[in-house]
Amino acid sequence: MTELANDRLLRALLRQPVDRTPIWMMRQAGRYLPEYRATRQHAGSFLDLCKNAELACEVTMQPLRRYPMDAAILFSDILTVPDAMGLGLYFEEGEGPRFRKTVRSEADLQGLIDIKSDDHLGYVMNAVRTIRHELNGSVPLIGFSGSPWTLATYMVEGGSSKDFARVKAMAYDKPELMHQLLGLLADAVADYLAAQVRAGAQALQIFDTWGGSLSAAAYQEFSLQYMQRIVAALPEEADGRTVPVIVFTKGGGQWLETIADCGAHAVGLDWTTDIGAARSRVGDRVALQGNMDPAMLYATPQRIREEVATILQGYGNGTGHVFNLGHGITPGVNPDNVTAFVDAVHELSPQYHQ
Amino acid sequence: MTELANDRLLRALLRQPVDRTPIWMMRQAGRYLPEYRATRQHAGSFLDLCKNAELACEVTMQPLRRYPMDAAILFSDILTVPDAMGLGLYFEEGEGPRFRKTVRSEADLQGLIDIKSDDHLGYVMNAVRTIRHELNGSVPLIGFSGSPWTLATYMVEGGSSKDFARVKAMAYDKPELMHQLLGLLADAVADYLAAQVRAGAQALQIFDTWGGSLSAAAYQEFSLQYMQRIVAALPEEADGRTVPVIVFTKGGGQWLETIADCGAHAVGLDWTTDIGAARSRVGDRVALQGNMDPAMLYATPQRIREEVATILQGYGNGTGHVFNLGHGITPGVNPDNVTAFVDAVHELSPQYHQ
Repeated sequence: MTELANDRLLRALLRQPVDRTPIWMMRQAGRYLPEYRATRQHAGSFLDLCKNAELACEVTMQPLRRYPMDAAILFSDILTVPDAMGLGLYFEEGEGPRFRKTVRSEADLQGLIDIKSDDHLGYVMNAVRTIRHELNGSVPLIGFSGSPWTLATYMVEGGSSKDFARVKAMAYDKPELMHQLLGLLADAVADYLAAQVRAGAQALQIFDTWGGSLSAAAYQEFSLQYMQRIVAALPEEADGRTVPVIVFTKGGGQWLETIADCGAHAVGLDWTTDIGAARSRVGDRVALQGNMDPAMLYATPQRIREEVATILQGYGNGTGHVFNLGHGITPGVNPDNVTAFVDAVHELSPQYHQ
Repeated sequence: MTELANDRLLRALLRQPVDRTPIWMMRQAGRYLPEYRATRQHAGSFLDLCKNAELACEVTMQPLRRYPMDAAILFSDILTVPDAMGLGLYFEEGEGPRFRKTVRSEADLQGLIDIKSDDHLGYVMNAVRTIRHELNGSVPLIGFSGSPWTLATYMVEGGSSKDFARVKAMAYDKPELMHQLLGLLADAVADYLAAQVRAGAQALQIFDTWGGSLSAAAYQEFSLQYMQRIVAALPEEADGRTVPVIVFTKGGGQWLETIADCGAHAVGLDWTTDIGAARSRVGDRVALQGNMDPAMLYATPQRIREEVATILQGYGNGTGHVFNLGHGITPGVNPDNVTAFVDAVHELSPQYHQ
C-alpha cells in the first residue's frame, strides 16, 4: 500500500491536529457534474453504473479532478444490501428507488437471502479496490452504507415514503418482527462495511437518512441502537491505521448527545443545527462533520464564502471538524459554485489550526 | 355571544387549571373521514369547499360529531392569503398546492394586491361566523394562517418544493427583497388573523410548516422574527377573553427556547421532540401542544393508548398541555383509531390534573 499523501480527513475525524479543515461533499460524484451525466448516459441505468467497477471508479474520480477535495467517497447506492438480499432494487426516472419485493411479515423476512458481502456484493468490493488503486494514495477513500432503520424503511414500504405508515405501523405493532429485521440488517451492514475496509476503504459513513422521522424514544430503539451495534462490530484498524466511522442522522440534531455516545468517531450534522452549539454539547467525545445548507450552493460565490466563514467561526479553533454540506449536493447546482465553496474552506480555515 | 360550555383548550393554552388535558387534532376535518370525502366530492375542488361557508362549516363539524374534541378548527387552507394577493392558487390532484404566478423579483412583489382581509378574504370570515354560530358555545373555534416564511416558500417556488432552491437562493442572495416580501406577508397575516378573531375565532395557530427547512440562524432571521411581529400585532382579547396564540414550527425542536420567547402563549411540538425534555427547556413561559407521531394512528388501539400514556406521563402533572398529533392526521388512518386516541386522552389525563 502506498503512503497517504493527504491524511487530513483521517486526522480530523480522530481529532488530531491538521493544517486546515478537510472537506468533502455528500454526493460529490453526482448529477450536478456534466461529466457525471455523460458517464451515466453511457452506463445505462444508475444500478448498471454502480455495478461496473471501472465506471464507478470514473465517476468517483470526477469531482477530485475539478476540486481539491480531501477525500473520495465510493460511488454506490445506500440500498445495495437489501438488493443483494433479493428484493430487486430498481430506479424509476425521477421517482427514487423502488423494490420489486417488500418485507412485511415473518415469511418475507425468512425469504431474505443470507448474504456474505464478499460474495453477494463483490461488485462493490471490486469498485472499492479499483478506486483505491486509482487514488494511488492521494486522498483517503470513504466507504458507506445505509443504516438498518433507513434500509428497513425502503424494504417495508417498497420505496420512498412520505409518512412511513407501513414501516412505523410494523415498528409500533410488531416490535419483535421489526427488531428481527433490524438485527439481521445490522449484522449484514457490519459485514458489508468490514468487507469494504478489507477491500481498501479508509473511513466509513453510516447514512441514517430517515432516523429523523422517528420520535426521540423510537429513534433510540429502532435506529441508534443498531448503528451502535454496527460500530462495535467494525474492525478498528486497517494497514495499522484507525478506520474512523461517521454516523449521520439527518434530522438528528435534537439527539446529538446520545448519538455522540454510540461509539462512532464522528457525528454528521445537517444544516439545521448550529455547529458551535453542537460542539459545546458533544464536547471532546467526537469530531463533527458538516454542515452548510446544500441550498446555499444556489447563492453567489461571495455569499457561499460568507457562509463558510460563519460555519468555521462557529466551530472555532482546533481540530475535530470536517467540512461538508448538511446533506447531499442537489443536481441543479452550478459546478463553479462548488469551486467557490471548496476554495473558501481552503483559504479561510488555516487560521483556526495555528 | 353564548357562554363557552367547554373552555379546557383556552384554559390549558393560558396555563390555567383544567380537569383533564384538552385535545384536538391537526387536520381533524380531513380525508380520513368518509363523510368528509362525500362532502368534498359534492363541493367540487378543494378551494370550492373552502369558499363555501356552509360546506366549510359542515366539514369543520364532522369530526366533532364523531369525537369529543375540545376544539373545532376552521376548515380552510394555509395559502388563502397569497391567493387573495393575486397568485392564483389551485390544486393538482395528488400533487399539492400550486400557484399560477410566482414572486421572484421586485416587480413581482410590486404586482401583489394590497389586501384587506375583511374584503379580499370575506369568504373565510363568513366561514368563521357560520361555524361559530353552529358551534353554539360548545367548544372554542381555532383560526389559523400559514407563517410568512411558509407562505413565501410556495409563492417563490410556485408550489411544494423538495429543496427550496429558489426561495433560499432569494433569502441568501437578495435578503432585502426577501425581507420586503416577509414584512408584507407578516402585516397581511396579522390583519387576516385579527379579522378571524373579529369574526369569531377564539384561539389562533400559526402553521410554520417549512421553518424547519432553515438553518438555525436563517430560521431566526426569516421565519421566527416575522411570527414574533404577527403575535405582537394581534388583538389580545375578544369578548373579554384572551385569544391564545399557538406557534407551530415543524422541525423546530432544536430552537424551542427561542420560539418560546416569541410572545405566543403556546408552542406546538412535532413528534421528534420529547415532550418532557421540552417542558424542562421552556419552563413556565408557554404551554406546549402535541405531540404523538401521526403514524401511530396506523397502530392498534392498544398501542395508541400506550403512546398516549407515555406522552401524558412525559409532560407530567399540571396544566399547560394541549394534546395533539405532532403533525396533521394522514388520509389512510382508520377513523376508529381516532376514537381510541381521543378516548385514551380523556381517560388517562385526569390523574395529572388533581
